[in-house]
Amino acid sequence: MIVRFAGFGLGAATLTTVAAASGNNDGDVLDPSFDLSYFMAEPVTPRSSLVENKDDMKVKMEMLIMKIQADFCRALEDEEDPSKKFLVDRWTRSEGGGGVTCVIQNGKTFEKAGVNVSVVHGVLPVDAVRQMKARGKELIGKELPFFAAGISSVIHPSNPHVPTIHFNYRYFEVTQENGEKMWWFGGGTDLTPYYLVDDDVRHFHSTLKKACDLHNAGYYPKFKKWCDDYFMVSHRNERRGVGGIFFDDFEMHSQESCFKFVKSCAESVIPSYVPLVTKHKNDSYTSAQRDWQLLRRGRYVEFNLVYDRGTKFGLYTPGARIESILMSLPVYAKWEYMHSPSDGTPEAKLTEVLKNPKEWI
Amino acid sequence: MIVRFAGFGLGAATLTTVAAASGNNDGDVLDPSFDLSYFMAEPVTPRSSLVENKDDMKVKMEMLIMKIQADFCRALEDEEDPSKKFLVDRWTRSEGGGGVTCVIQNGKTFEKAGVNVSVVHGVLPVDAVRQMKARGKELIGKELPFFAAGISSVIHPSNPHVPTIHFNYRYFEVTQENGEKMWWFGGGTDLTPYYLVDDDVRHFHSTLKKACDLHNAGYYPKFKKWCDDYFMVSHRNERRGVGGIFFDDFEMHSQESCFKFVKSCAESVIPSYVPLVTKHKNDSYTSAQRDWQLLRRGRYVEFNLVYDRGTKFGLYTPGARIESILMSLPVYAKWEYMHSPSDGTPEAKLTEVLKNPKEWI
Repeated sequence: MIVRFAGFGLGAATLTTVAAASGNNDGDVLDPSFDLSYFMAEPVTPRSSLVENKDDMKVKMEMLIMKIQADFCRALEDEEDPSKKFLVDRWTRSEGGGGVTCVIQNGKTFEKAGVNVSVVHGVLPVDAVRQMKARGKELIGKELPFFAAGISSVIHPSNPHVPTIHFNYRYFEVTQENGEKMWWFGGGTDLTPYYLVDDDVRHFHSTLKKACDLHNAGYYPKFKKWCDDYFMVSHRNERRGVGGIFFDDFEMHSQESCFKFVKSCAESVIPSYVPLVTKHKNDSYTSAQRDWQLLRRGRYVEFNLVYDRGTKFGLYTPGARIESILMSLPVYAKWEYMHSPSDGTPEAKLTEVLKNPKEWI
Repeated sequence: MIVRFAGFGLGAATLTTVAAASGNNDGDVLDPSFDLSYFMAEPVTPRSSLVENKDDMKVKMEMLIMKIQADFCRALEDEEDPSKKFLVDRWTRSEGGGGVTCVIQNGKTFEKAGVNVSVVHGVLPVDAVRQMKARGKELIGKELPFFAAGISSVIHPSNPHVPTIHFNYRYFEVTQENGEKMWWFGGGTDLTPYYLVDDDVRHFHSTLKKACDLHNAGYYPKFKKWCDDYFMVSHRNERRGVGGIFFDDFEMHSQESCFKFVKSCAESVIPSYVPLVTKHKNDSYTSAQRDWQLLRRGRYVEFNLVYDRGTKFGLYTPGARIESILMSLPVYAKWEYMHSPSDGTPEAKLTEVLKNPKEWI
């Protein structure tokens, strides 16, 4: 039995028993007996409305991402110094909706760990909606009512031998002027190591592939390539990391089967990543290796601020919560003029893979 | 008399006497007796071609920026540990032209100092040209031959009590499909302090104003406002620093008088800034002040990668020299979730001015 204090988002800390709801619980989180305090904070939508609309995809997605957030934060806390817990900010957006942002800063294992859930709605200019979609599908109307629910996370560990992970799973609904409702899912999980350990990367990719294969054997190869193409720092001619999976405009099947695929992907994050943290968090490292980690974090910043569609969309959206968007940036980053690793070094080995992505499994 | 080694860009180090050419020499730099080794490297254009076309604005601008670069680098070296000199990279661009990049990294006074000259030509898509111009002026043709010569510099000092400076002066020529040649100048100088010393900011702005007033009493107020508007980090609702001057599409007078104005601005950089370096470079500071400097440098990175037109133009231009463009980034930057200075602190005083720019003179 796990006994713990719930996050700040719930107001005064309350002692809660969460054992029944933790781990691989696949039960109905809207069952009256389900203890919402397992979540990092109260969901954005009031419980009464959640229960009333429990079969609506908006509700199902909100419940999924709240649970994924709680599972992931707790799995990370288990790797962290016991005195260091996630700071939980539950916020609302005046334009509609809100979110729950969980952050660890300057931990022993995690220099910065951010796990953000947002459930927002309102009206968007058609250009903004178009930007949200990868394809240039025709949209009817000028300003479109929308709903978006997503979880987004970036973990920057302290030890250069532990990779950075990013994942993001999201669901959108847009209602066109003619009343037609469009919906789609998007998401992905990708890994950014500072030092390449082939076995680790294979473990990471295999875990994602297993989640994909449950649904369609064609998904992993397709979404693996999409990931390599998306996380491209064009001006450096290198990828941000060793990839993973990435997809958008996912709507080709029934809503329910799309949701199940997204759920499998989101649930594969912990088994794909946490074992790598456990394995390497106590590895010894030199100040030169820390320096290399910071230089690579500079490249991470370059990708996020120059190319990342999610970040750009957030920065240009009125009323967006900037601190939750830029939570993806590392505590420290470094730039050095004309830095280039020497041939034959582990740093050069990583760079080679970033320039020429490979098949891991 | 100053005796020194010329930069790497000239090949083997050569012992050169530069006293005659240094300082406020307003002589004709193309006079046969002028010693080109005063420059940090050979100009991009061969000397024979420079002499032959000495009255062409392209040549006049190249000579001006080479001289400004040398003057500024030497003035900075005078503030630096004598063992630390600018590293000089003279580079060529396969699409046409080249440049001279001068960098000090991890100096005693300057954590990173970059002074870049580029003189490039080629053919640009009309969209790229349009992006170069602030106004949406009609351009005739699809791909336009262009010439661009500019100097660009960012100085990130080690001591948090010494402000960061940025300046950039540039000249463009574009030939339209109908043969019509367009030309314009652009540029500016702006200051980014970490701690506000009103006298220093007044000194900085007064020096720029004096340079402007030599040409037109309306320039300083107009270009000061333009600067406040341009260096806006919209998603933070704050400016990058305390401004200075900024202008673009400067073409409303004769080419010669526009050039003279730009020359005055470029020549005001040293007197506006170097005295602040001298004054504060040995100030004592705490690790909390260093931390604040790094957080502000994170904001500097945000502006440069998200908004700066020059950086974005560079990142998206094929064949651009990335290391020269991103030389503007600091060695170290920091991000902290939800950081906000406490009321009444010097850090809060600076933040207030970044949110509400004021008139300094």
